[in-house]
Amino acid sequence: MNKHKITAGFIIIGNEILSGRTQDQNLNFLAKNLVEMGIILKDVRVIGDFEDEIIETVNILKSKYDYVFTSGGIGPTHDDITTECIAKTFNQQLILHPLAHEILIKHYGKENVNQARLKMAYLPSNASLLDNPVSSAPGFRIDNVFVMAGVPKIFQAMFMACKKELICGEKIISREIKINLTESSIAQDLTKLQLHYPDIAMGSYPFEGQTSLVFRSSNLNQLNIAINKMIDLIKIINPNENIELS
Amino acid sequence: MNKHKITAGFIIIGNEILSGRTQDQNLNFLAKNLVEMGIILKDVRVIGDFEDEIIETVNILKSKYDYVFTSGGIGPTHDDITTECIAKTFNQQLILHPLAHEILIKHYGKENVNQARLKMAYLPSNASLLDNPVSSAPGFRIDNVFVMAGVPKIFQAMFMACKKELICGEKIISREIKINLTESSIAQDLTKLQLHYPDIAMGSYPFEGQTSLVFRSSNLNQLNIAINKMIDLIKIINPNENIELS
Repeated sequence: MNKHKITAGFIIIGNEILSGRTQDQNLNFLAKNLVEMGIILKDVRVIGDFEDEIIETVNILKSKYDYVFTSGGIGPTHDDITTECIAKTFNQQLILHPLAHEILIKHYGKENVNQARLKMAYLPSNASLLDNPVSSAPGFRIDNVFVMAGVPKIFQAMFMACKKELICGEKIISREIKINLTESSIAQDLTKLQLHYPDIAMGSYPFEGQTSLVFRSSNLNQLNIAINKMIDLIKIINPNENIELS
Repeated sequence: MNKHKITAGFIIIGNEILSGRTQDQNLNFLAKNLVEMGIILKDVRVIGDFEDEIIETVNILKSKYDYVFTSGGIGPTHDDITTECIAKTFNQQLILHPLAHEILIKHYGKENVNQARLKMAYLPSNASLLDNPVSSAPGFRIDNVFVMAGVPKIFQAMFMACKKELICGEKIISREIKINLTESSIAQDLTKLQLHYPDIAMGSYPFEGQTSLVFRSSNLNQLNIAINKMIDLIKIINPNENIELS
């Protein structure tokens, strides 16, 4: 694992996302949190609750990236097949995880841990539980894969529990310039600046008549130099331009 | 193309989604619209603005699914590389598309079509333009790939323009039962019902203490029979259960 460039993939598992019934809310949360930790989210997949697709996707992503996160499919019903698929991906049996079982009993009372709930405590034999203060649903880690719930509140709690297990990468700093000029009026200058500073990722995004220029780099000094050059270039186009910098 | 089972993939292209700066709003819109048309969205990818990743992903998805949609990266700035990558994917040159050029001139006036704007009118030689009443940004179709803008308002307008070019599949009807019972209390019955009706996709989703059961099928008759059986099973668990059906 290269300490300076740590990458991640995210697999959103659920027919309800692909059918439009549910709008995913976890990607944006995860993305923001990974950026904070200097972990580069490279690749996100949304797939349905199908065994072959889940196994294939986890297999591809776990070997490509340092970390893989999944959301969805760890509940008590028949359509929650993620845990079983992860076990198959790692050639492991599902076994009753003592701590996950204990948490279920504590949460529901022994008499209320029916077969469906008990299913949730069967985890791949090498899995380690993720703390989850919100519900008793067991998220878990196995190797570099973090398996988490789809419900945003629970996903977020589980991610907070993963955080301490993740190695942070080099922090990427982001600065933004908002202007009223159009994208196309600054495009040429921006291209030249990008060629001059290839290590700074420069993005341009139109937004309701404004343009937002986002510069990202791990080198704050170089980032500030490039930002100042951009501001100079904008002022050449329009000396009175109202520049919002953040 | 199997007229009854038409599939699609969606590629969301943009560093701003992966860094958490922007929350995608196009997936849910596309998903809902495809469901309406009986087109099954199978696979969604979110990738950054990198040539090799765009080309590889488009190549995989265009051969796997009947239709592929992309969002993002067709604007005037240097980080908008989607159009160029699509041309490379199809081994085509970028040529000045006469109609796209005409639309740009009409929109901005000839004197304002600078180099950056003109870049947007260079499309792969075999591309056909998508109508776009919202802006002059040229979305286009090439083979089974529809290349669209990332800005939601423009994405939506372009999708509306694609619609008439898409072959509809067999419409999937969806019915939903909302109950106050927990997922785990109905899980066993639901599993049995699913085994009895393998052609009906049955999903169970917890939501703020309630459970939502979603049954989906192209066969309305069978769907209604299964829904009624589920209601009977719920009433055995709790005769006074407040069942919301939609």
